[in-house]
Amino acid sequence: MAAELKNLTKRSVDYSKWYNELVVKADLAEQADVRGCMVIKPYGYAIWEKLQQTLDGMFKETGVQNVYFPMLIPKSFLSKEAEHVEGFAKECAVVTHYRLKTNETGDGVVVDPAAKLEEELIIRPTSETTIWNTYRKWIQSWRDLPLLCNQWCNVMRWEMRTRLFLRTSEFLWQEGHTAHATREEAEERAQQMLKVYADFVEKYMAVPVVQGVKSETERFAGALDTYTIEAMMQDGKALQSGTSHFLGQNFGKAFNVQFVDKENKMQYAWATSWGVSTRLMGALIMVHSDDNGLVLPPHLAPIQVVMVPIYRKDEELEALNEKFEALARRLRQLGIRVKYDNSENKRPGFKFADYELKGVPVRLVMGPKDMENGTVEVMRRDTLEKETRQFEGIDEYVNTLLEEIQTNIFEKAKKYRDEHIFECDNYEDFKTRVKDGGFFLCPWDGTTETEARIKEETQATIRCVPLGVDQSNPGVDMVSGKPAKYKVLIARSY
Amino acid sequence: MAAELKNLTKRSVDYSKWYNELVVKADLAEQADVRGCMVIKPYGYAIWEKLQQTLDGMFKETGVQNVYFPMLIPKSFLSKEAEHVEGFAKECAVVTHYRLKTNETGDGVVVDPAAKLEEELIIRPTSETTIWNTYRKWIQSWRDLPLLCNQWCNVMRWEMRTRLFLRTSEFLWQEGHTAHATREEAEERAQQMLKVYADFVEKYMAVPVVQGVKSETERFAGALDTYTIEAMMQDGKALQSGTSHFLGQNFGKAFNVQFVDKENKMQYAWATSWGVSTRLMGALIMVHSDDNGLVLPPHLAPIQVVMVPIYRKDEELEALNEKFEALARRLRQLGIRVKYDNSENKRPGFKFADYELKGVPVRLVMGPKDMENGTVEVMRRDTLEKETRQFEGIDEYVNTLLEEIQTNIFEKAKKYRDEHIFECDNYEDFKTRVKDGGFFLCPWDGTTETEARIKEETQATIRCVPLGVDQSNPGVDMVSGKPAKYKVLIARSY
Repeated sequence: MAAELKNLTKRSVDYSKWYNELVVKADLAEQADVRGCMVIKPYGYAIWEKLQQTLDGMFKETGVQNVYFPMLIPKSFLSKEAEHVEGFAKECAVVTHYRLKTNETGDGVVVDPAAKLEEELIIRPTSETTIWNTYRKWIQSWRDLPLLCNQWCNVMRWEMRTRLFLRTSEFLWQEGHTAHATREEAEERAQQMLKVYADFVEKYMAVPVVQGVKSETERFAGALDTYTIEAMMQDGKALQSGTSHFLGQNFGKAFNVQFVDKENKMQYAWATSWGVSTRLMGALIMVHSDDNGLVLPPHLAPIQVVMVPIYRKDEELEALNEKFEALARRLRQLGIRVKYDNSENKRPGFKFADYELKGVPVRLVMGPKDMENGTVEVMRRDTLEKETRQFEGIDEYVNTLLEEIQTNIFEKAKKYRDEHIFECDNYEDFKTRVKDGGFFLCPWDGTTETEARIKEETQATIRCVPLGVDQSNPGVDMVSGKPAKYKVLIARSY
Repeated sequence: MAAELKNLTKRSVDYSKWYNELVVKADLAEQADVRGCMVIKPYGYAIWEKLQQTLDGMFKETGVQNVYFPMLIPKSFLSKEAEHVEGFAKECAVVTHYRLKTNETGDGVVVDPAAKLEEELIIRPTSETTIWNTYRKWIQSWRDLPLLCNQWCNVMRWEMRTRLFLRTSEFLWQEGHTAHATREEAEERAQQMLKVYADFVEKYMAVPVVQGVKSETERFAGALDTYTIEAMMQDGKALQSGTSHFLGQNFGKAFNVQFVDKENKMQYAWATSWGVSTRLMGALIMVHSDDNGLVLPPHLAPIQVVMVPIYRKDEELEALNEKFEALARRLRQLGIRVKYDNSENKRPGFKFADYELKGVPVRLVMGPKDMENGTVEVMRRDTLEKETRQFEGIDEYVNTLLEEIQTNIFEKAKKYRDEHIFECDNYEDFKTRVKDGGFFLCPWDGTTETEARIKEETQATIRCVPLGVDQSNPGVDMVSGKPAKYKVLIARSY
């Protein structure tokens, strides 16, 4: 059974298959009975909850308040913002009826044709339209601004090719929607939330990100600017992990949200929106895990320390129970999430494999020999290194070790990422190398034509104009040979 | 403005109108643009969050784990459990298409007839069907049991007459779904969760409840037993505040969820489900609030203490700021949620009215005179009593006062409730008195006919067979004159 647990496809053999197997074997999620949707299982949901709580606290520190808007949106709302409808109206779940009735044979149900809606409703793919239609009622004066709302909810986009966490038709996310009196304030907020995302992903998920601005083609439908954080997976591909949009007055105008400013003039409100989703779970899994299973960052691991006793005789177990339970209490006092697994229906070998697969950062094992010697075996999941240490003071040691693991996996991911960012200004060279993954920093002339050609010929896309990169002398576009406008980050992506 | 804030219809004039106005004026929720749905505003959502976090912790203490299942359910799943389909399939939102397209004139979108689903999907009204269809894959052996899952999510029931929080087409809730190896264990779990609900509602919401078992007619569609908690509103009507269902093997059989028991025999799994929803917000509002606005129980109030300075000169404000901010820090150290409102664009009178309307349990006011005398004015929202106290030691006093308010509003609601529970075995008497509200404890012969007649003639329903009531000698049915089976609680309800 332990062997079977570990029977994961190796990353080097098939990274994509490794991921799919890992998500299921580590009990994170599985395909649902409805096409393209997923069931998030208890262990996966526990990670999502940690992530959600942490991020929610960070939002609130910036003054954001939570709200809840309806999941159904009248079809006509979608058409009000011209670009938005192009981006979102197409692939969505449409509610056309509000009743079923028993069929003629009495053994099933059919749609009741008499219960057809006058106007179809769609399940929200994102909520700008319904929220801005409400903001019209909430915003009258500059005193009502800024308005800083967020909701945690489910959304639906009818995706054709889906993968657990990375792309599913229904997914969980948060969507922040803010309204401001000035352009500057809205732009600042969009940038501020990008920073919150970057901080969260780096500090808690231990995933390094590149912050940047999307090209016009890759922008959110209806945005003037889309800010993004891009993370590198172990196959060198990019995963867009969060976006924050400066929406200008597009939604203010589309939904006629006007306010009286301090000079007593009517103005349209300025908007931002920003979101991260269960897709972050995909990044978390893909960046750190290995051929033995998950590697979870201690800051988000539902179980940070697992303790397993080894024994033959009942009295040995009793002594171990006493020792471990006292330690568990001490660790919990330090705020550490501990599980003591003395279940009798599984062998230690099975437990070891299972907790490795589930990515528990630290494992403590004691047997009768350790009891005699006053020692305990400590294994850290990130390096799989084992050491035998004095039991005395082990609580403080574990506390430090968890932080060390958090730092170590971040540094490891950052080293890998940095080693796979390449400056490149030769298109032939680029075409050969991009197949092996990595982020390529290349001069771009800023045209949609060049962008489209790169995508078509290499399946790579412009991920962003990275922030913090010197753009004073971007050079010559590697495709068109024209003067470049920016250095951009190009990569294949999820 | 302060006067306008308070311009609430009085409860004695129109209780129903008072409620509707209060929900909107206190900024809790409002009607959404989609028929029958609501927008939960920041202040309302903050209360819901407190409630949710507390209850979630109580579930987890009993071993429950959170999960997430898809919101869409294949139509055919609903027909698998015969009673369930009758109860839920009828009024629900049906997704029939997965794409919109631009209309002929190019200024709107229409449903794309080419994108019709082979099988319609409905938005979950409750998730027993989809969850049990998945449990089949999760449950093989007695070792996989019990399985204790819960999800916090949105659900949709196409209601015709809706009221904010009390009955909306879309609402937020949690639904627990457990699977067990034995009948006894499942029955115990259903009862255990009822007790969790009762504890929560009484201790945190400060709302006394009657625990009981529903009659067959009032049972959940597909349950063998439905346990309920019933609360009394200030008009004497009942509000069903939470239910826990013992589902027997109905879903185990309908979805073929079998396991190998300890004797190596195949058995169908036993089930429970249990839920509370945003309806609890309705109870919270209706039980405690008064003609001045909300009265929130301190345990769930987003702001427990509000502090308002009164001043004319800037240097007075500075001194008050210093004093109040130091106090705020001390109160926060005691775990108290504090707001210091020194905003300059609202007069104190407006602030007082606003925080009264919003039900903040304790208000502290200081002006220059208080600074001189070392005093502070304390107002408690439940009784509206004001007193002037020494500033010294006010933090400990407030801490005690919050608990006192929590106890007081529970006792007040309990006294009202107890004074409006009547024993009654005369139907004529009952018919006259039930119009004025109250819970009536009456002998019932246990027949559906009697139950239906009472409902038709009085609009009152059997709320439950209350637990803890002596049923050894229930007497004679007040309607049929036949020997009674139980004493039941009858009331008009929301």
